[in-house]
Amino acid sequence: MTSSLLVVGSVALDSVETPFGKADDVLGGSANYFAASASHQTPVQLVGVVGSDYPIAKLEPLAKRGVDMSGLEHAEGESFRWRGRYRHDLNSAETLETRLGVFSHFRPKLPEQFKSAKYVFLANIDPRLQLEVLSQIAAPKLVACDTMNFWIESRRADLLALIERVDLITLNDGEARQLTEQANLVQAARWILARGPKTVLIKKGEHGAFMFTKDSVFYAPAYPLESVFDPTGAGDSFAGGFMGYLARTDDLSEANLRRAVIMGSAMGSFVVEGFSITRLLEITRADIDRRVADFHRLVSFDQALPA
Amino acid sequence: MTSSLLVVGSVALDSVETPFGKADDVLGGSANYFAASASHQTPVQLVGVVGSDYPIAKLEPLAKRGVDMSGLEHAEGESFRWRGRYRHDLNSAETLETRLGVFSHFRPKLPEQFKSAKYVFLANIDPRLQLEVLSQIAAPKLVACDTMNFWIESRRADLLALIERVDLITLNDGEARQLTEQANLVQAARWILARGPKTVLIKKGEHGAFMFTKDSVFYAPAYPLESVFDPTGAGDSFAGGFMGYLARTDDLSEANLRRAVIMGSAMGSFVVEGFSITRLLEITRADIDRRVADFHRLVSFDQALPA
Repeated sequence: MTSSLLVVGSVALDSVETPFGKADDVLGGSANYFAASASHQTPVQLVGVVGSDYPIAKLEPLAKRGVDMSGLEHAEGESFRWRGRYRHDLNSAETLETRLGVFSHFRPKLPEQFKSAKYVFLANIDPRLQLEVLSQIAAPKLVACDTMNFWIESRRADLLALIERVDLITLNDGEARQLTEQANLVQAARWILARGPKTVLIKKGEHGAFMFTKDSVFYAPAYPLESVFDPTGAGDSFAGGFMGYLARTDDLSEANLRRAVIMGSAMGSFVVEGFSITRLLEITRADIDRRVADFHRLVSFDQALPA
Repeated sequence: MTSSLLVVGSVALDSVETPFGKADDVLGGSANYFAASASHQTPVQLVGVVGSDYPIAKLEPLAKRGVDMSGLEHAEGESFRWRGRYRHDLNSAETLETRLGVFSHFRPKLPEQFKSAKYVFLANIDPRLQLEVLSQIAAPKLVACDTMNFWIESRRADLLALIERVDLITLNDGEARQLTEQANLVQAARWILARGPKTVLIKKGEHGAFMFTKDSVFYAPAYPLESVFDPTGAGDSFAGGFMGYLARTDDLSEANLRRAVIMGSAMGSFVVEGFSITRLLEITRADIDRRVADFHRLVSFDQALPA
């Protein structure tokens, strides 16, 4: 019952410094994190661009896991590079350098066989490009998008046009407040739900994630890890686990959406245990099942109150 | 099966300003919030002090709800007054003025009939006084304490001596980090568990609460309210719901501790809907049951993953 899952986003090289170590020019970008995470659930179709300097061989493990790279454009020039640092507050990255390289001219073109994708994740790129991708897909069953403060400021009209056309949006709490100008997250979610999406996922980093629909609220905590090594990619790995699970099960019931949020939270909790996508490539199905069970234990209580 | 529940703490007059309004000289202090909350579960014995200016008649509703005021000392002088303001970040109060008044000479003396209390909550006062109270209680079944940054800095040795003698400690995330010098909350909890308490409750305000024991972690979210009116007293109301529930059920199993955390979270979510203890005096058992059920819906997921 697995359905096709497409992601469009950045394929980057990251250089990261955390209180626990540093890594240079490692696999990064939203599409890489998303695909590595989702590939535990279902095959993934990746759309992105790399420059002539990209260490293509390093994508081999992803291809082996069922990530179809035929939508990865190889352009002349430098690849997208991000350099960042986390201090003791691991919740927020300090960007030291962003070099867009070939990404600045990226115009995503979907291979013919990707145009029938049923599950689509428009990772955090220019909303105009997100709209262009959407127009190339014939009959998606669920379209989700992510975004960030930069686009909320500089492409508000395009972003609002996109929001009208997606089924689900993921954004963090600060972005939700910025987009909606509502300080309260329940009100922020309601603002977004009134504009099109049937589901709003608000990510709060180490404080978990909310899923809002018109009739329900679901909350998943972040897993209380004893050490967070590198928070980069947690949001995209969350999205990959969430969307991968939905594509695999092809069930959009509320109960299944909740399970998908937990799967996303589990994947987000793994990726931060190492640099880049390292941990996502190491973990097994058994590891994932164990963590999902841990999440269940973490929040379970028997509401039957003695009289 | 209800067991006696004793609280020692402050009985104050608060003047509070929030983005939504202001209130002057309203009932405040940890013991008032705790007692108003716990009284929904079980009778409460209150130990504290007020000055000659305290509007004693305003405590009448608490007495009517089963709060035994025979441990409330009436001293010559001014009552404890706190004046604070919340801006748009409702997570942190700005203290504008603290006048200890008669509280600065407070030496808690327990009435004879309080000394057999089984459940004891030492609210946030000088750890030396918390220790004095403890020494007056014959054979408690569960002793819990709260504390704050001021005591962690100025009375560290006394606080550590107290921690060795309590079964449970509640503190917020910032205080847990300050006390233990551990940035990570799991490690902070482990540090405290190694020093005596069998249970550590770490409160994260709008981000919920963790309960750590040697073998388990439980997490309860804060209820996603559409409007938080005044956050004052949320922690003490949480503690009141938690301890009140334990005293009523007299069951210290892990499953029941979890239910108690949810009861605490429910009471914390009510108190912030109005100034002072107003909402705690309005709500009914049915309101509480409904909110507990809401908490269950908020976090529930069926972990059975399709193959």
